[in-house]
Formats: sequence, C-alpha cells, structure tokens
Amino acid sequence: MTNKNLSTDSYKGVRDFYPEDMAVQQYIFSTWAKTAESFGFERYDASVLEPSELYKAKGAENEEMVNEQTYTFTDRGGREVTLRPEMTPTVARMIAGRWRELASKAPIRWYSIPNMFRYERMQKGRLREHWQFNCDIFGVNDVSMDVEIIALAYQIFKNFGATDDMFTIYVNNRATMQLAYQSLGITDAQTITTITRLNDKKDKISGSEYLEKLNDITNDSELSTTIKKMIEAEDSGDNAVVAGLRELGIKNVILDRSLARGFDYYTGTIFEIKDTSGENNRTLCGGGRYDNLTSMFGNDAVSGIGFGFGDVSLRDFLETHKLLPDNLSFTTAIVVIPMDEALNLEAQKIAKQIRDKGISVSVDAGKKRVGEKIGRASDKGVEKVIVIGENEVSTQVFTLKNLKSGEEKTGSLLEIIV
Amino acid sequence: MTNKNLSTDSYKGVRDFYPEDMAVQQYIFSTWAKTAESFGFERYDASVLEPSELYKAKGAENEEMVNEQTYTFTDRGGREVTLRPEMTPTVARMIAGRWRELASKAPIRWYSIPNMFRYERMQKGRLREHWQFNCDIFGVNDVSMDVEIIALAYQIFKNFGATDDMFTIYVNNRATMQLAYQSLGITDAQTITTITRLNDKKDKISGSEYLEKLNDITNDSELSTTIKKMIEAEDSGDNAVVAGLRELGIKNVILDRSLARGFDYYTGTIFEIKDTSGENNRTLCGGGRYDNLTSMFGNDAVSGIGFGFGDVSLRDFLETHKLLPDNLSFTTAIVVIPMDEALNLEAQKIAKQIRDKGISVSVDAGKKRVGEKIGRASDKGVEKVIVIGENEVSTQVFTLKNLKSGEEKTGSLLEIIV
Repeated sequence: MTNKNLSTDSYKGVRDFYPEDMAVQQYIFSTWAKTAESFGFERYDASVLEPSELYKAKGAENEEMVNEQTYTFTDRGGREVTLRPEMTPTVARMIAGRWRELASKAPIRWYSIPNMFRYERMQKGRLREHWQFNCDIFGVNDVSMDVEIIALAYQIFKNFGATDDMFTIYVNNRATMQLAYQSLGITDAQTITTITRLNDKKDKISGSEYLEKLNDITNDSELSTTIKKMIEAEDSGDNAVVAGLRELGIKNVILDRSLARGFDYYTGTIFEIKDTSGENNRTLCGGGRYDNLTSMFGNDAVSGIGFGFGDVSLRDFLETHKLLPDNLSFTTAIVVIPMDEALNLEAQKIAKQIRDKGISVSVDAGKKRVGEKIGRASDKGVEKVIVIGENEVSTQVFTLKNLKSGEEKTGSLLEIIV
Repeated sequence: MTNKNLSTDSYKGVRDFYPEDMAVQQYIFSTWAKTAESFGFERYDASVLEPSELYKAKGAENEEMVNEQTYTFTDRGGREVTLRPEMTPTVARMIAGRWRELASKAPIRWYSIPNMFRYERMQKGRLREHWQFNCDIFGVNDVSMDVEIIALAYQIFKNFGATDDMFTIYVNNRATMQLAYQSLGITDAQTITTITRLNDKKDKISGSEYLEKLNDITNDSELSTTIKKMIEAEDSGDNAVVAGLRELGIKNVILDRSLARGFDYYTGTIFEIKDTSGENNRTLCGGGRYDNLTSMFGNDAVSGIGFGFGDVSLRDFLETHKLLPDNLSFTTAIVVIPMDEALNLEAQKIAKQIRDKGISVSVDAGKKRVGEKIGRASDKGVEKVIVIGENEVSTQVFTLKNLKSGEEKTGSLLEIIV
C-alpha cells in the first residue's frame, strides 16, 4: 500500500465518459444503429484483442504499422496480441470463418460499433482510443451495393439533422484509376502507388508543387502535365456510383480522381465524406471496396464494400454545426422525496409500486431538506415529484407535483401517477 | 507477406459475436440498461485501458493479482498499463475526480456495461474477456440504499422472466460479523480474515471438516464450536437489509453468515445471487458496500454500494431456465427483390422511398432466382416482400406479398406499404 495519492486521471489519450458525455455517446451510437438497421444491417462484435498476425499478414508495410503504431504485447503464454487498430481485418476473419454457410445468403450486411486503439503521438484531437461505426456488405460485387453503402453513410448525416451543404461525398475508383494510368503508359504498380499517395496530399500543396512532385516520379514533364489534367478533369458523369447516388436524390457527391484512401486493400470504389465548414479537416467517414481480404485465410476471395465512421470527428462535426440536441441526459419520470431519513425505506416501497406500472422513478434519499431536493429534481429536468411524510404513509393519500406546469394531483398512488 | 494461411479463430479465451450471438448480447444489455434506468441510474463508461497503479494501490495482495492475473504491459512511453479486470476501481477513480461537484447531488446512481479481462488458465466456462453490468450508488450510507441496490439486482431477474424459485439472494454484513467475532474475543484482524476466507468455502466442505479447519485457526475447540453455531444460526430477522427486502415483497432472500465475497474492500452489507438449479455454481451477481475506495485518491471517503453481474454466467442461467426468447434476431420489415440484376439500382430507389416512411427495408441484390430469394426472406422471418420487374418499374404499380398471411396488396408504393 503506497501513501502517495493516486491520480484520478484516466490513462493518457483515452476518455472517461461521465453521464453527460455518455448521453452524447449513446445518442451517436443509437443513431448509427437505427440507421444501419433501417437498411437491413445486422449487428456483430468481437473482442478488442486480436492475434498480431492478423495485421502483419497484409504486407511488410503493415508489419511496420503493427510494430510502431499499435498496442502490441506478448501474453503470458508467449502469444503476440494487438489491441485492434481497425475493424476490417476482424470482420474479414469472421466472414472467412463462416463463408461456407454465409455464401448462399449474400448480400450479407453487417454493422458494428467497436472501440479501437492506435499508439499516436499526443496532439490536439488525436486520441489513442476511439469508437468507430463500421458497415460492410459482403458477397455481391455490384454497383448497386456501392451506391447503397454510400447512401447509408449519407443517411447517417441526414438522421443527425445535417443538411447537404454541411458535408460533401468524394468518390473515386481504384480500378478505373489503374486503367487510366495504364492508358498513359504507366504500368509499374509501384509507380502507380507512388502517384496515388501523392494525389492523397494534393489538397495540401499548390498546383505547381504538385506538378513538380509528379515530375520527380515520372521524369517526364509532358506526362506529368497529362496526369495532372486527368486528375483535375471535370466529372463527365461516367462514374456509375456517382450517377447512381444522384438518381437516389443525393446531390452533394463529387467524383474526385485525386482521392486515394490510406489502406492498400481497396480494389474498386473508394469514398470519403468531409465537413464543408473548414473547421474539421479530418475525414468523417471513409471506405471502399476490397476483393481479396478473405483470401489470406485460405478462402475464396469474397468481395466486400464498407466504411468506418469515427465518434470523435463526428462529435466535432455535430458541435460545429450545432446539431447536438441539448436535452440528451437521462432523467427519471418521477422522483419520490422522503421528508426525513426515517422514511427512506417507505419511499422505496412507494417507488416500487410506481416502477411496477412501467414508470421510471428514483428516491432522493439524501440528507438535504425537501425544498432543496425539489430544486435539485427541477434542475435535472425531472417532471414530477411526490413528497412523502408520515401523513402520506398513514393515509396512503399522496400529492404528485408537476414541476413544469406547477399542477398538483392528490389521491391514491395509482390515481395520481396515471 | 506470408504464404501460410491465417487462422480465422479469435484470440484464445475471447468470443466472436456473430449476428445471432450479438442479438442475445444486445437483449441482455438492453434489459440491464432499461432496468437500471427504471431505478433512475445514469450510464457512464471509461476505457478498458487503465494505469496499473489503480489496481496495485489496494495492497500487496492486489499487486500479486495485477502481476499474475491481469493483462499488464508497458506502453512505448514506459507507462505500465492494465486491461481492467473489474470496474469498481475505475468508477471510484471517476467519482473521486469529480466528488467536489457531485457531493451535493448524492445519492449518485451510476451504471455501466464494460468489458473486462482476466488472464485465466483456460477451462470450461472460464473466459478471458467478459462483459459485466455494474451498478453503484454513492454518497448516501443508509440501509434503504442497500435495499434498493439489491432490489435492482432482483428486478433484473424478474425482467428476464425468472421466477423466485430460480434464484436465491444471500446477504451478510462485514461490520456485523466483525462485531460478532469481537464479542467472542477474536480481535486480531488477520484471524478474522482467515476465518472469513474459510467461511467462503464452507459450502464445499463437510461440517466436520469445517470445524477442523476452524480449530486449525483458533486452536480452541470450544471457541470453534461457538463460531460454527453463530455462522449456522437461523436468521432471526435482525438484518435490516433482509427485513427491508422482505418488506418490498422480495421473499427469496436469506441471511447467510458464511457469505464472505472475495474483494477486501467491502465494509458493510455484502450479497450474492445464485442459481438454484445446481447447474450453474458460479455466482450470478455479487456486491456490497465499500467506504474507503475514494480515499486512495486523497479524497474524503465516499461511501458506495454496488454490484457486478456478468454476461457469461447470466447467459448460462437464462439457457438453463429456458428464458431466452427465440426470436431475438433482427430482420427488416420488407425485402425488395429485383427480378434480375439490371434492376438492382431501381430496387434501391424503391427501398429508399419505403425507408423514408420510417420502415426498415433491404434489397436482395444477390444472384439467386426470385423464388429462392422469397424463400430466403421467409427463412429469416421477414414479413413482407415486393418483387420488382420491368413492368413494376414502368407502371409504378407494385405488389406487396405478406409471407406470413399469404395476403397480397397491389397499388402504388405508398398505398401498399401503409
């Protein structure tokens, strides 16, 4: 036993959710869940602990990521374990594990709201743990599925009360881009990857700087100019996903040929959703189609398309646009207030009768005076109180006071609570 | 990139929640949450990562527990981190961190449904990760609070459909036991702890073996016999918590003077709830009053009473007593079935119109024939389907088929879905 006082701080980079923060978190989670279910998605989950091999398998680059950016440790049995940094490898593992049984049921629509960890250098807005809404459709590679998953992401914004001017959907296609580069004579996969990574940073540099860096890659200024033109060309309406979204009435969608997405596993459609306000530069939601993730488990390749949507950047977005309702905290419908401590147990009996009628109720058994207890209930937004004294207990006649309207109702318990 | 196929198994001792398992998990979580809220409890949460000091501070015994039974590792910044093995130290940390502001609002009622990890040797029914419903009341040390928290635990069982004969509530009081030992002349704290630990195993040994082991501790056979009689004495109705519960109409409660509870931090009322069937020997729910947990943060001691209720043993209980509803899996209200793939996007448009009316709907965009798709919807428990062909698209006249009643309704989309 140490004499030094322990800190009440949480571990660095993670959050405590006091009830008022948890109310916001629950509002976000339930809006995510309800929207996913309105599209027919089923919920799944898995442990935050995964074998480290799951992340290393995707290539040497991932091995570096695992070693440097994740929480990875060796358990007492000598197994290397990682706190998941993203959900896609986990869902691919689960889908691969039961694909034989699931294949005939495709399209499989799954969603989850897992927490995930990254070992990040601490800076403003960068946390080591966050929660992320994940939606995926497996087993059908069809443009209508790409349209649906993006329409679902769009609907999330609508269900939080956002209007189209608050966010923009950027769409691109890895396979189309590959063909475009090949048509320009660029066939080397590594060169295409290097250009793709440069494109990902295009927004943050000037046009001339971009061209210069393209030159560094191609050593061919004419080719570089052609690439730049191709990337910046107007949307000619030839992307079927963008066209399909517009047919569904979704207008704030743009074909952006510079869009790259970080993960290497995407093979077709990729997309990102960003805040238009300029105050939140991080991507709110991003995803794409991947065709080969299950094959690392020795399975047939199962095509999937999905996205991740983080709670931290979403909350920033909702705050920036003033979309968070201000009455999210939970309160009971009725508070029973005993006039003194000797009546605390009687108050519990009365509360039980009210609760048995399906009404939420709590007992204010604190040491404050009745007036203070009523004020406290009012401050919390509680609508109704019943004060219990000796008289109420002996006569079983009670008065229910509505703190909002000021009305009072006197009678038997069952009469006044209906 | 390795060529060996990755395993689709989860990490050892944790669970994957496929949708059918997740549906059960969500049913358990929502029943917990609704019951807690019916008593006026507010939800909180925290990260599963905690500084290891939090668990070591409670004493040398805990240091051993942290080192041998938890997932503890050193992060890249040299900090020792533990995956929480229980929630009480976390909630004590959070309460202590804001007690100045919370004190005037006591009683504070909080609940949470955290996951927690223990590094256990693998055996049947022992998992390394489980979820645990945690409820606590802070700041009021009054018998009515002890009664309330146990009544809440009782109500959980009722809300799962359990009857009183399926479970028993065992209650004891650490402080009362301390006084009882002192009245027998046993004043040494270590001796009392040793007897308490022996009592905890009393059910698993014979009466004579128990007496023998008492003798080993006291070296006084007369005293040992007196202790045994005291422990086994009939409930004389003098425990105010047991009496209070009975006044609330809760009859399956027993005063059990052998009840000990593992954690050292309990100071008053302690209780456990067990399955009466004999098939599940692990405690379903257990807790008690603790008065000194916040003082390790340098705060005034805040009195609290709470319990933990694990998902694994609860699920075993619900299965044993056949209390799990069999229709928990989520299904959409309507499935839209395109007659061929060319109509997939049209089907999405129709689904969107249905969804905009607040009805959950999905599109079966798979490659099966229409008959198979209808059969699949029926197997899943979906109530209604709409089949879309060229004709429906051009005329905008649709037929909704009710798979349960066999009825059909033909008309415009808005006419048939109401």
